[in-house]
Amino acid sequence: MNEQISDVVIAMGSDSDLEIMKVAKDVLEAFEVSSTLRILSAHRTPFEMLDFATNARAKGVKVIIAGAGGAAHLPGMIAAATTLPVIGVPVSLRRLDGLDSLLSIVQMPRGVPVATVAIDNATNAAILALRILSIGDKKIESKLIEYAQFNRQTSLAKDAQLDPN
Amino acid sequence: MNEQISDVVIAMGSDSDLEIMKVAKDVLEAFEVSSTLRILSAHRTPFEMLDFATNARAKGVKVIIAGAGGAAHLPGMIAAATTLPVIGVPVSLRRLDGLDSLLSIVQMPRGVPVATVAIDNATNAAILALRILSIGDKKIESKLIEYAQFNRQTSLAKDAQLDPN
Amino acid sequence: MNEQISDVVIAMGSDSDLEIMKVAKDVLEAFEVSSTLRILSAHRTPFEMLDFATNARAKGVKVIIAGAGGAAHLPGMIAAATTLPVIGVPVSLRRLDGLDSLLSIVQMPRGVPVATVAIDNATNAAILALRILSIGDKKIESKLIEYAQFNRQTSLAKDAQLDPN
Amino acid sequence: MNEQISDVVIAMGSDSDLEIMKVAKDVLEAFEVSSTLRILSAHRTPFEMLDFATNARAKGVKVIIAGAGGAAHLPGMIAAATTLPVIGVPVSLRRLDGLDSLLSIVQMPRGVPVATVAIDNATNAAILALRILSIGDKKIESKLIEYAQFNRQTSLAKDAQLDPN
Amino acid sequence: MNEQISDVVIAMGSDSDLEIMKVAKDVLEAFEVSSTLRILSAHRTPFEMLDFATNARAKGVKVIIAGAGGAAHLPGMIAAATTLPVIGVPVSLRRLDGLDSLLSIVQMPRGVPVATVAIDNATNAAILALRILSIGDKKIESKLIEYAQFNRQTSLAKDAQLDPN
Amino acid sequence: MNEQISDVVIAMGSDSDLEIMKVAKDVLEAFEVSSTLRILSAHRTPFEMLDFATNARAKGVKVIIAGAGGAAHLPGMIAAATTLPVIGVPVSLRRLDGLDSLLSIVQMPRGVPVATVAIDNATNAAILALRILSIGDKKIESKLIEYAQFNRQTSLAKDAQLDPN
Amino acid sequence: MNEQISDVVIAMGSDSDLEIMKVAKDVLEAFEVSSTLRILSAHRTPFEMLDFATNARAKGVKVIIAGAGGAAHLPGMIAAATTLPVIGVPVSLRRLDGLDSLLSIVQMPRGVPVATVAIDNATNAAILALRILSIGDKKIESKLIEYAQFNRQTSLAKDAQLDPN
Amino acid sequence: MNEQISDVVIAMGSDSDLEIMKVAKDVLEAFEVSSTLRILSAHRTPFEMLDFATNARAKGVKVIIAGAGGAAHLPGMIAAATTLPVIGVPVSLRRLDGLDSLLSIVQMPRGVPVATVAIDNATNAAILALRILSIGDKKIESKLIEYAQFNRQTSLAKDAQLDPN
Repeated sequence: MNEQISDVVIAMGSDSDLEIMKVAKDVLEAFEVSSTLRILSAHRTPFEMLDFATNARAKGVKVIIAGAGGAAHLPGMIAAATTLPVIGVPVSLRRLDGLDSLLSIVQMPRGVPVATVAIDNATNAAILALRILSIGDKKIESKLIEYAQFNRQTSLAKDAQLDPN
Repeated sequence: MNEQISDVVIAMGSDSDLEIMKVAKDVLEAFEVSSTLRILSAHRTPFEMLDFATNARAKGVKVIIAGAGGAAHLPGMIAAATTLPVIGVPVSLRRLDGLDSLLSIVQMPRGVPVATVAIDNATNAAILALRILSIGDKKIESKLIEYAQFNRQTSLAKDAQLDPN
Repeated sequence: MNEQISDVVIAMGSDSDLEIMKVAKDVLEAFEVSSTLRILSAHRTPFEMLDFATNARAKGVKVIIAGAGGAAHLPGMIAAATTLPVIGVPVSLRRLDGLDSLLSIVQMPRGVPVATVAIDNATNAAILALRILSIGDKKIESKLIEYAQFNRQTSLAKDAQLDPN
Repeated sequence: MNEQISDVVIAMGSDSDLEIMKVAKDVLEAFEVSSTLRILSAHRTPFEMLDFATNARAKGVKVIIAGAGGAAHLPGMIAAATTLPVIGVPVSLRRLDGLDSLLSIVQMPRGVPVATVAIDNATNAAILALRILSIGDKKIESKLIEYAQFNRQTSLAKDAQLDPN
Repeated sequence: MNEQISDVVIAMGSDSDLEIMKVAKDVLEAFEVSSTLRILSAHRTPFEMLDFATNARAKGVKVIIAGAGGAAHLPGMIAAATTLPVIGVPVSLRRLDGLDSLLSIVQMPRGVPVATVAIDNATNAAILALRILSIGDKKIESKLIEYAQFNRQTSLAKDAQLDPN
Repeated sequence: MNEQISDVVIAMGSDSDLEIMKVAKDVLEAFEVSSTLRILSAHRTPFEMLDFATNARAKGVKVIIAGAGGAAHLPGMIAAATTLPVIGVPVSLRRLDGLDSLLSIVQMPRGVPVATVAIDNATNAAILALRILSIGDKKIESKLIEYAQFNRQTSLAKDAQLDPN
Repeated sequence: MNEQISDVVIAMGSDSDLEIMKVAKDVLEAFEVSSTLRILSAHRTPFEMLDFATNARAKGVKVIIAGAGGAAHLPGMIAAATTLPVIGVPVSLRRLDGLDSLLSIVQMPRGVPVATVAIDNATNAAILALRILSIGDKKIESKLIEYAQFNRQTSLAKDAQLDPN
Repeated sequence: MNEQISDVVIAMGSDSDLEIMKVAKDVLEAFEVSSTLRILSAHRTPFEMLDFATNARAKGVKVIIAGAGGAAHLPGMIAAATTLPVIGVPVSLRRLDGLDSLLSIVQMPRGVPVATVAIDNATNAAILALRILSIGDKKIESKLIEYAQFNRQTSLAKDAQLDPN
């Protein structure tokens, strides 16, 4: 755990989610946005988890990304204790292909939303965090435009190389 | 809220679940087991909810029934803060027929189980609570045997009246 | 259509989604955040839709909410043409309870996220937009804290009135 | 089969479920609670199965755990012939990821509940049995508190070691 | 209950399934095949149910139709205690559209099949029983051919009357 | 039945599908394309159905639309006996919301495709037939462009009238 | 193909289903019941398939087993052209775990039932065929009782060897 | 990219779909129909994608095949900008077995159909394109009849070689 809080905190329920979730940190780094990985379990450390969520804003966190699988309560419980935007990543377990994780995260009751992205797609959680931060940050906005351009150019290049006969 | 804590607490996330959940209280009453209905929201009152769960055992609660719908976090979060058995009732919302509620409640990670019953079936939550209490309570055991006999006799009587031609 | 662009644009594919989606406008109004409702169809007006998305940022839009049902392409296509955060509301149709809408919106490929909320839950889309805006707006932050407090107090009051026997 | 009946009986329909279900015995052993593994098939030995269930209470069994897959009838049929609490473990087969097992176990009719835990999660069946037994057993209660503390400390330690840059 | 056992017994778990299941009796009557309706609950009268299944063949029953909903154990448990063909009708409950009933009935383990028909389709259970009985009964075979011809003629007549412009 | 065969035949398994399917005829009429409604049942009139499919091309039919529900075999069986393009409309029954119909129609094996459209969406079956016919018919192409323009203008008009405050 | 028709014909749509379906033949052989494997494709050889079904009864076939995957039309189409009992085996393909196959086979319309067994479970198709044949065949009845006894004894023996500590 | 436009364009969202989609080109080649593979991403190159779709007809394209996975918007968005028939191939991703892709493609709103084929079944997309082209092309019609005959003969030959005992 890093006491120096970053713009984005990437929380997960257990280190079994680390392989999926650390991708978010890599993406944020590529955009020069600081982030901190945290293991915070809704079920094993509920008080520490709520404590983190309650104080995150005051410590300077702007966006929280939370990944969890199965009866995935972490994103929703963090969202319950902060007014910051919380992005949820449904992590697929060995069974049900992440459908349980997705429904447990996205179907939040009125008043406490979780911004849910695709199953196992921590990249999109990071990009969504960057889009959110870009509202008040021209540098991130520029990098997002570059990123979209890069993806566009890569796609066009692949198209150009295809089917040359 | 009733400060005098009962053997069973029946918690729900919102009063929209009351119609489904109060059936559990009726069943417990028929077995002369005291119960208290509580509105405790994982998302709107997370601290009060955890506080309740943390102190339930010390206050004499033996079994907790928790009903919730959608991204149904209440049963699992209560289970995270107590060592008492927690029974979860997946309450169906207008969409998805309770499949989201069921998966959000039953698919708990290793170490923190929720004893899940059928969708909208608060009767079964109450009967399960009674079965649990019956381990140490001969009177409840007797009443459960009577109840099974009553259900058996009713079923046999319906069979006997059927198809008389 | 309102040429004077607001902080939040609430787009929907057809006026059959209006009953669900206008709730988002009501919530934003209660927080004194301006919003504009738009009918923009990925399938009937694809160019106008992309044009809107491309220029939204320059016109001062900060967050886009998009609701759609069935093969719900509107949120993802808007997200493809802007770097603003896009919030998707899966609107349920007469069949499949919104499962098609949910999967069509949330399962976006790497690089183009849509912040998906619960099926038919335009309230949560608005609250998520407010949480995003609150990062740079203390007034909205305060109102969100009040809103959470109000929800908490309402829940506690309902709990207090329950089960008075 | 062990004629000396234990506090907990762990039944399964076939030895193909043994790898999943024996974990429950290991967990109970770690808590110094005696258990017996049984192969009792609702479909191949229905009379022996019902006979077991009918007499379990008289022989001193307190909780029954039953695992089964597919059209998983074992937990529900045992619950039909005893008033003890019955915990069901949906065991996943090669197809459908355990969804058939889950629905066959959890969707019991009014009056005959099965306390269902997550798919393939025999650990949680054991922990749930322990929570039930702990109502009347201070030693088990203490061990459950230790177990929760251990899980909490492990989670905190993993968090502390994470992301040290 | 009718002690005079018929060629076909139509069993159901509860009289709430009667409206769906009595259609099977009507169809069989139209084919002049005797049938008896029975309420036999896998969960409320497990011993009577197994007793019926064990003795059905000796009493002259040839085919058993069993309808049940939710965690639908009746068809499979009857099949476990007889060597007669057992036809299962998945009865839909208020939630899940009969998907739970279908999977609980059709996904039987190796060795104990249930001949499953469509959700709520007791007509097809009766027709399947008739097809089975027709192997050794020329009169039923003739009537089935007539029935198919009637359905064919009705379909052709409807086609002929359609779209007369 | 109309012996004078049209460009498009709209087949359905039973007149219970007529309300859904006749919409296709209305749409085709609006485009001045002749069509014939037929009741052809894969299960009640399999030979007549195959006979129709085998001879359709020789009689001048260009596209076949087939609607069916449940175990919906009609579109695939027609496709098996013709080389014409066959468009399938999954008709929803009372249970399962058309998911069974959709999978029964779309999941055809290699070599025998059915062009499947949305559940209950006979309009789209007609428009798809028109798109197919438009390849060799400038008049239909023009009308399709008009239709798209009309839908575009209607959508733009609704957008313009919205949110006038 | 074997012109000498057996009591049971085991049909499948393609030789890719052979590995699953030949198990049915092995089981029938163990019961000394003759069977013939056939490749009959609803989609590639619809006329031969219907021709087989139409004439099966006259050639002495008593029960037809049909396996198919995806949009699995073979069992239902055979059932449409015969009055014999038809048993359907949903064969799972690489995607969807056989759910498409199951729904395409079991959800047959009124009047044309398919006796559906579990996904990929050709053993149960054979046992169901034997149960059907046993109505008029004491030898098969005896063997089915032996088979049930064998399964019972095997299960009891496995139980006896378990958990010997 | 091949500027010389073919009768059929086979578009896909990313080269990760190439292995699945190139099969369509192979099938078309076997029928001597020209085709072009294109990478056109609804999300990374939305304008180029719409531009392609808008101009495809004028450049001589007759049928467009589009494959995509997850929130699969490509087929529907192409269909929105052309009046040509568009065939959609749901490509399965690592999770959900293509159910998300299927629903995102097939559930198009009224007016903008996508002719959807089976999950991952690019062969059927090609055959469907050929069936469409065959309406105005006797040579393709002949080849389709040959192809059906070949499939029929292969199936009959496999049947003849089966079960020779």
